Amino acid sequence: MVDQRETALQYARNNKEKFLNAFKEILTIPSVSTDPAHSADIRHAAEWIAAQLRGLGMQKVQIFPTTKHPFVYGEWLGAAGAPTVLVYGHYDVQPADPLNIWKTGPFDPVVRGEDIYARGASDMKGQAMVVLKAVESLIKTGGLPVNVKWLFEGEEEIGSPNLESFITDHKDLLACDFALNPDAGMIGKEYPTLTYALRGVAYFELRVYGPAQDLHSGIYGGVVHNPAIVLAELIAGMHDAKGRINLPGFYNRVKELTKEERDELARLPIDDKHFLEVTGAPALYGEAGFTVNERTGVRPTLDVNGMLSGFTGEGSKTIIPAWAMAKISMRLVPDQDPKEVNQQLKRYLEEHAPKDIRWELTAMVGSPASISDRNNIGVRAMEKALETVWGTRPIFRREGGSIPVVRDMQNLLGIESVVCGFGLPDDNVHAPNEKMHLPTWYRGIEAVIHFFLNLKP
Amino acid sequence: MVDQRETALQYARNNKEKFLNAFKEILTIPSVSTDPAHSADIRHAAEWIAAQLRGLGMQKVQIFPTTKHPFVYGEWLGAAGAPTVLVYGHYDVQPADPLNIWKTGPFDPVVRGEDIYARGASDMKGQAMVVLKAVESLIKTGGLPVNVKWLFEGEEEIGSPNLESFITDHKDLLACDFALNPDAGMIGKEYPTLTYALRGVAYFELRVYGPAQDLHSGIYGGVVHNPAIVLAELIAGMHDAKGRINLPGFYNRVKELTKEERDELARLPIDDKHFLEVTGAPALYGEAGFTVNERTGVRPTLDVNGMLSGFTGEGSKTIIPAWAMAKISMRLVPDQDPKEVNQQLKRYLEEHAPKDIRWELTAMVGSPASISDRNNIGVRAMEKALETVWGTRPIFRREGGSIPVVRDMQNLLGIESVVCGFGLPDDNVHAPNEKMHLPTWYRGIEAVIHFFLNLKP
Repeated sequence: MVDQRETALQYARNNKEKFLNAFKEILTIPSVSTDPAHSADIRHAAEWIAAQLRGLGMQKVQIFPTTKHPFVYGEWLGAAGAPTVLVYGHYDVQPADPLNIWKTGPFDPVVRGEDIYARGASDMKGQAMVVLKAVESLIKTGGLPVNVKWLFEGEEEIGSPNLESFITDHKDLLACDFALNPDAGMIGKEYPTLTYALRGVAYFELRVYGPAQDLHSGIYGGVVHNPAIVLAELIAGMHDAKGRINLPGFYNRVKELTKEERDELARLPIDDKHFLEVTGAPALYGEAGFTVNERTGVRPTLDVNGMLSGFTGEGSKTIIPAWAMAKISMRLVPDQDPKEVNQQLKRYLEEHAPKDIRWELTAMVGSPASISDRNNIGVRAMEKALETVWGTRPIFRREGGSIPVVRDMQNLLGIESVVCGFGLPDDNVHAPNEKMHLPTWYRGIEAVIHFFLNLKP
Repeated sequence: MVDQRETALQYARNNKEKFLNAFKEILTIPSVSTDPAHSADIRHAAEWIAAQLRGLGMQKVQIFPTTKHPFVYGEWLGAAGAPTVLVYGHYDVQPADPLNIWKTGPFDPVVRGEDIYARGASDMKGQAMVVLKAVESLIKTGGLPVNVKWLFEGEEEIGSPNLESFITDHKDLLACDFALNPDAGMIGKEYPTLTYALRGVAYFELRVYGPAQDLHSGIYGGVVHNPAIVLAELIAGMHDAKGRINLPGFYNRVKELTKEERDELARLPIDDKHFLEVTGAPALYGEAGFTVNERTGVRPTLDVNGMLSGFTGEGSKTIIPAWAMAKISMRLVPDQDPKEVNQQLKRYLEEHAPKDIRWELTAMVGSPASISDRNNIGVRAMEKALETVWGTRPIFRREGGSIPVVRDMQNLLGIESVVCGFGLPDDNVHAPNEKMHLPTWYRGIEAVIHFFLNLKP
């Protein structure tokens, strides 16, 4: 009897071109969730995913509408006695702007060298395709060794506003042993990575209003407080000279790092040189007293994601702008609470904003950090799968990014997630010229084939 | 013999509607000098002005091209023995954006109540029309009592890059006794105003560059310095807690205010209440130890005119932006030098910018402050004219805005300028819904008729 492991891997190797074509197809759909102009594209992407699931023989395939973008569900529960894996994915993507920096169209996938370029190639259409194509390889060569449920959402890039209520309302439908979440990444192409902790996020829009309208800066320069300057002063005050965040009580819940944690983080094969290369920044920066891996993994951070005020065109316009705006986000670590952080930011503004302007703070996205159990059977199955394909033990990593769904599934379904992925640090996720490294993508498909087979009772 | 004063005023009163129609005509031309897309409109406006001059019987009417936007010249020198007045004007306007705040189109002039709304209505197509229509009233009722030369430029709103060289190259053509410059404004509609001092201006664009491209703020938050935050910190450091400007040596050339100057400024009929009303700001702000009139007239100021970085659309995008930009301008007082201020700002950045970003500073516009001789025959003629029409002695004012041409004419032609105007503080110059108060505009035409007749030998 031929081992399914061999036939499934062979199927995947024989169908590389077909897999790539399906990947390209989903990449052409501009499913940008933050922009209402793309809601038809979002629907199109949801239908495309549903069609893929039906094509794999999944049952109960259904598109669940929400107040914004729909969920796609499907399942196959024919492996009696075997574990049930809930595969999570999102089919929405970040906006593509600034468009002028893309070398080729963000929704016109192009292979250059070993990479395929398109918005969503790495985050996370490419990752979702890895699992879909691994499952296809198993189904075509003897069938799935485990039960599978699928949950795709279309709102991940806007903070998953309907995820919590959807999970709460569908606990029975989503019941499983653990989740597979391939929305993380690898440290480098030779370093298979399992993420066991994720930072949370709190995202805000801060607006500062000054005069009733733009004023002539010659006539009125000297009598009103310039809202752009006030906003700059408020932002400047959010960090101290050591790179620590100045909001009142911000570090109260942040745990001290133990010696063991520091030692483990020190063993990660990424260093300052790595970050200098992938970011292209003139020099690194961060909270004093912590290494790069500590600063990106286990310490909270605050960033300005965008800023706008007054005249920003070519040339000069001598005005005092009527208002100024900044998008400000924090990455949170256990046990920080996004709602508490909102209060801390509010308190900071109440204490520091001058009375000669008016400010407005809008909380946009919030989710706490999460830590997974590294001894979960899913994690063990993936650890082994990655080692088989890469020939090296995977790295366990605390990651800087946020995947709120991991925390929600822990809280609402009582399950752990296997957080992994096959994206690389230079994939330009959330940036122009996003890409996926195709040799790694194919290796990912093989790893997920192994993963499912490793779970066979 | 009927006095020309009476017939000319009567002509102006009889032709109010015709004058208004001509005013509307020039307001429909979107002659925005900073935007290359409007260069045909700029040419159109220049030709419209030239046609007006020809219609008034002016001689040597000519459009002088430059490397950017043309000058329009014309003259009538038939009043032997009488003084020669050089009338200065500019036919270009500020950009109209933000368009969505305009109640009616910026180039679709509309009369609402006593005001006409359009970009340039006050700054300064309306003011130029006052002089053109006053001259028409005189020409149609016996002729001009003085010699007149006209110089219109199309680059005032972009810092008059060709003005200095044009004046230098055409000293003989422009030779005159003094200039009439109606590009200033009035303190209030019952307060005719003569401006005898103007602040200078220095305008910069500052760009801060960080990572090679936008980065995912989850993955990279903690290792690179956010360029938007660095820009905010640099801007925040430009003022101290007392509202003083922190650039090294910035106040070195700024003269102490004498008791006489402070007393005179204290007599101006504008106060905090006035500035609160016209700006609509929640409270006033400015350099500690100085009154509003001192802060807008005789003290230098620094403003941010615009700011842009990262993602500024609706929703959230979790990036560390690759760069951030601010437009920064200073209003200068005697004897500050814009070139020296450029060096001071550079030195400030060299001292304060961190090494983990790269910055670029571009000097865009620069002109020093100017003070005129209040005993000039032109100033005296206008003072009397304003008193005749308004029935009250005009106010002599140091103004916050900058009119570099006044200084250039002083330096290059050796002449003083009569700096006046009929715009009001709430005209929204450089802002949406710019307007001109029509009853004041008509009074302005009468005042300029008196002014020319007052100069008759």
